[in-house]
Amino acid sequence: MTRAVWVDGMAEGAVGPLDRGLAYGDGLFETIALRNGRAPLLDLHLARLREGAARLRLALDTQRVQDDLARAFAVATQRTGGDGVVKLIVTRGDGARGYRIPDGSMPRHVVLLDDLPAFPAANATEGVELYPCAMRLGCNPQLAGLKHLNRLEQVLARSEWDDARFAEGLVCDIDGRVVEGTFSNVLLVQRGELVAPSLARCGVAGVMRRWLLAQAPSLGIRVREADVLDKDLARVDEMMVCNSLFGLWPVLACGARRWPAGPVTRRLQDAVAELFAGGEGA
Amino acid sequence: MTRAVWVDGMAEGAVGPLDRGLAYGDGLFETIALRNGRAPLLDLHLARLREGAARLRLALDTQRVQDDLARAFAVATQRTGGDGVVKLIVTRGDGARGYRIPDGSMPRHVVLLDDLPAFPAANATEGVELYPCAMRLGCNPQLAGLKHLNRLEQVLARSEWDDARFAEGLVCDIDGRVVEGTFSNVLLVQRGELVAPSLARCGVAGVMRRWLLAQAPSLGIRVREADVLDKDLARVDEMMVCNSLFGLWPVLACGARRWPAGPVTRRLQDAVAELFAGGEGA
Repeated sequence: MTRAVWVDGMAEGAVGPLDRGLAYGDGLFETIALRNGRAPLLDLHLARLREGAARLRLALDTQRVQDDLARAFAVATQRTGGDGVVKLIVTRGDGARGYRIPDGSMPRHVVLLDDLPAFPAANATEGVELYPCAMRLGCNPQLAGLKHLNRLEQVLARSEWDDARFAEGLVCDIDGRVVEGTFSNVLLVQRGELVAPSLARCGVAGVMRRWLLAQAPSLGIRVREADVLDKDLARVDEMMVCNSLFGLWPVLACGARRWPAGPVTRRLQDAVAELFAGGEGA
Repeated sequence: MTRAVWVDGMAEGAVGPLDRGLAYGDGLFETIALRNGRAPLLDLHLARLREGAARLRLALDTQRVQDDLARAFAVATQRTGGDGVVKLIVTRGDGARGYRIPDGSMPRHVVLLDDLPAFPAANATEGVELYPCAMRLGCNPQLAGLKHLNRLEQVLARSEWDDARFAEGLVCDIDGRVVEGTFSNVLLVQRGELVAPSLARCGVAGVMRRWLLAQAPSLGIRVREADVLDKDLARVDEMMVCNSLFGLWPVLACGARRWPAGPVTRRLQDAVAELFAGGEGA
């Protein structure tokens, strides 16, 4: 349930019907977890938002972003002591008909504050099963990695299953490469090495994925980004999904394939638990 | 300039910040030209909207669509005698956080009425030059052809040029196949045959393109949908772009390549002129 909404800083605001976020998905978003009054991966969220704005030529005002987040964090702290999820949508703002980016367009900021979602504890302790989505991601390096508002592929992939047995889905690209989950990133372990499927052609570059890849070497785990074909998953030692809300879940099964919740996964889960408890990050 | 707006039938309405059109581009749109009180391609617009809704599992209420259009057409007729452009956006409606399609979601309808755009008359009489866009379209057969709200590729392609010399851009897919313009479809003539680049992998299946392909045989022109590589354009006899607002423009140049405004293009332009004047269609 959404606890509070602001549009361009106004509580309970609405979005004008000429907004290019609505018309074209012309914008970006971030979903930021707040735990005990702290947003552990805030710097990575802000870095991705800035990079996305640069790639979409969107005139991001970082001071407005910080004011928006401060306002939402303050309300979350009042209400719950500082737990919540803040979703920030930044669109190109209003436009006339036509794809051309209007001169001097003014971005629109929508902020939604929700409770932290409650996932089953067993997802982390035991592991999860992934639904093997038939939906494929199109490849477009110009949009790859961005958390932009064109998310119909994720909507369709997520619509493929309704059975709560599947905590997440596995999504491949049009050429059969493993890319990500519908709302998480995928990481694999092969011969002790942490392998992150490449996001050079499609997919969302999640901040938890980025944080884990940066932390792993200090935990004695080598890391590598690589193209991984769906058929190669049979030869993988461990598999996991991660995002900034739930952290890291071992993946036990997807289709006919089975993996253990192995030692590398467990070591990374410990690091995430420490991050969430306040041991690291901003 | 936008002349009138309705959101779910309410004049001057706004869109709630939880709308999934805004969050994910989860919806469809149609841009319908009204000329002398008639919408010549209305049936094709409605057919595409219904097909898109089926493919996106969106619970379209066609009676609401017809009421929306009747309302906008009535205002256009009062104001201008019946010329205008009606843009209808149908989103999935409001949702909570997450990609999952909510049970019983209620689509939101946004209707925008504008004046018919004024294009230079020379675009049709003499022809146009296309900007060769570097932006490539990702391939995803599950979304191909739909006029959905995920249009960042078009936004980025259209942002590549600012010189009014280029009336439109030419956009290829990631594998170098010619697909479309940024706001129009492309048609070619080879050995007297009308060739429409395939939209099986990406692109928007324009209603004018569809109408022309249906009309051409009765004008003695054979038609074919085919994959066309960008490098094959040098061996094309005529080239044109079309959409339901401007009709059909001969393409004279794109990059180093030149084409004449040839006889097949002119015959099809005559058919469009007749359509716009009231000679055909619904």
